[in-house]
Amino acid sequence: MKRSSDILYGIHPVREALRAGRRRLRTLYLGERYADRRLAPLKALAAAHGIPVKTIPAADLRKLAGTDMHQGVCLEAGALPLMEITALISRIGKEDKAPFLLLLDGVVDPNNLGALVRTALCAGVDGVVIPRDRSAAPTPAADRASAGAMEHIRLTRVTNMVTTIQQLKTRGLWVVCADRHASQTLFATDLTGPLGLVIGGEEKGLRPLVKKTCDQLTAIPQSGAVDSLNASAAGAVLMYEALRQRSRKERSTQ
Amino acid sequence: MKRSSDILYGIHPVREALRAGRRRLRTLYLGERYADRRLAPLKALAAAHGIPVKTIPAADLRKLAGTDMHQGVCLEAGALPLMEITALISRIGKEDKAPFLLLLDGVVDPNNLGALVRTALCAGVDGVVIPRDRSAAPTPAADRASAGAMEHIRLTRVTNMVTTIQQLKTRGLWVVCADRHASQTLFATDLTGPLGLVIGGEEKGLRPLVKKTCDQLTAIPQSGAVDSLNASAAGAVLMYEALRQRSRKERSTQ
Repeated sequence: MKRSSDILYGIHPVREALRAGRRRLRTLYLGERYADRRLAPLKALAAAHGIPVKTIPAADLRKLAGTDMHQGVCLEAGALPLMEITALISRIGKEDKAPFLLLLDGVVDPNNLGALVRTALCAGVDGVVIPRDRSAAPTPAADRASAGAMEHIRLTRVTNMVTTIQQLKTRGLWVVCADRHASQTLFATDLTGPLGLVIGGEEKGLRPLVKKTCDQLTAIPQSGAVDSLNASAAGAVLMYEALRQRSRKERSTQ
Repeated sequence: MKRSSDILYGIHPVREALRAGRRRLRTLYLGERYADRRLAPLKALAAAHGIPVKTIPAADLRKLAGTDMHQGVCLEAGALPLMEITALISRIGKEDKAPFLLLLDGVVDPNNLGALVRTALCAGVDGVVIPRDRSAAPTPAADRASAGAMEHIRLTRVTNMVTTIQQLKTRGLWVVCADRHASQTLFATDLTGPLGLVIGGEEKGLRPLVKKTCDQLTAIPQSGAVDSLNASAAGAVLMYEALRQRSRKERSTQ
């Protein structure tokens, strides 16, 4: 069943949903007696979109959001538009820079999904691919963790990650997956071409078949006594190393 | 007042406290009817340290931890030993690699503090400096967010961050602070020598005087519509770029 409506909450997701304008915007709800000066611009944005603004008691806002973390504001809006993987592939093929996709396999914590999407947007990733099952969904909670970045990024949900990786390879993407046991380190891996970067989930990591389907495994060097980087820190390191290599290449070919 | 005792909770912090052995270890508490197979090794570790193991009802464990996030285990232990800044400086001066310190200014969210400490340990940072005021403290909650990395890292709390930066500069460290408005990007900044890396907090960023005291400002390149990377993602990118440059230099001078 498709969700027809989302209740976004928190200043950043609501602001970015209004700014991006990719959802069907319905109603902006403000909490009575919230004095945050960041709320006024939201009213102006709502007015610009011609959507109603309602001021309601804080208790009602809490009920609407389903959480206390609403910062005095909710937005009722249609579902986030997702892209079909085929549309994403053909879209990025038309741009004049080498495509850079992020694929998340088994990231089940909405906070990690949000954090990774936020970093992806900052690092200039062209699209994020997540599986339909065994993954956090692009819920209002994930949107909040992304500080609203989810409203701007191209997002695709796929049924079968392995098939998707095969499709991307056919279209000329080099698919690299992060694996702590890989013999090659990140810094020795060429990430400058058309790229699909695959990051595994928090607990179980990547599924063996996903790993096997990738072109290459790469490891983030890690020292010290604890297990490993968390998923969102690992993602930040991977995406920014790709960005570093790619911006260097751009400079050197100009 | 100095806390004489901490109640650590969660499998990772408890395991790492037992493994690191830096705290005075008092009692291990296990919840009745918790079947996680990761609990058994904790009992063995407790036995190896000669500390008592008590099995108590889950409700009591919850009360002891002050949270539901205990995963069936708590450890009563003395406070985490901190290092004086002077001891830290003289200690790292004796090691045969160039020192690499992380300074956190105004990171008030214990989850961010924990995440940054975890990444610091993975990235080979020699010590983490936080201010006594206006900062998250090394509490059990931060320890849990660090997945126990806090038990292993050298941690220093200082009264005055500006004075500390001046001290580090006198001792030959190059103090670089992350600032999104800096004209030079991270990738163009030399991070290979004795290094102090300063990262600001979530909301307010660095205090002007802290910024002014640093040798250099550096910016993480960021594209896209949202505000910026979160503190822990920014920290991961910064620390790993330093690690990349430093390991490259090591290789080239061998």
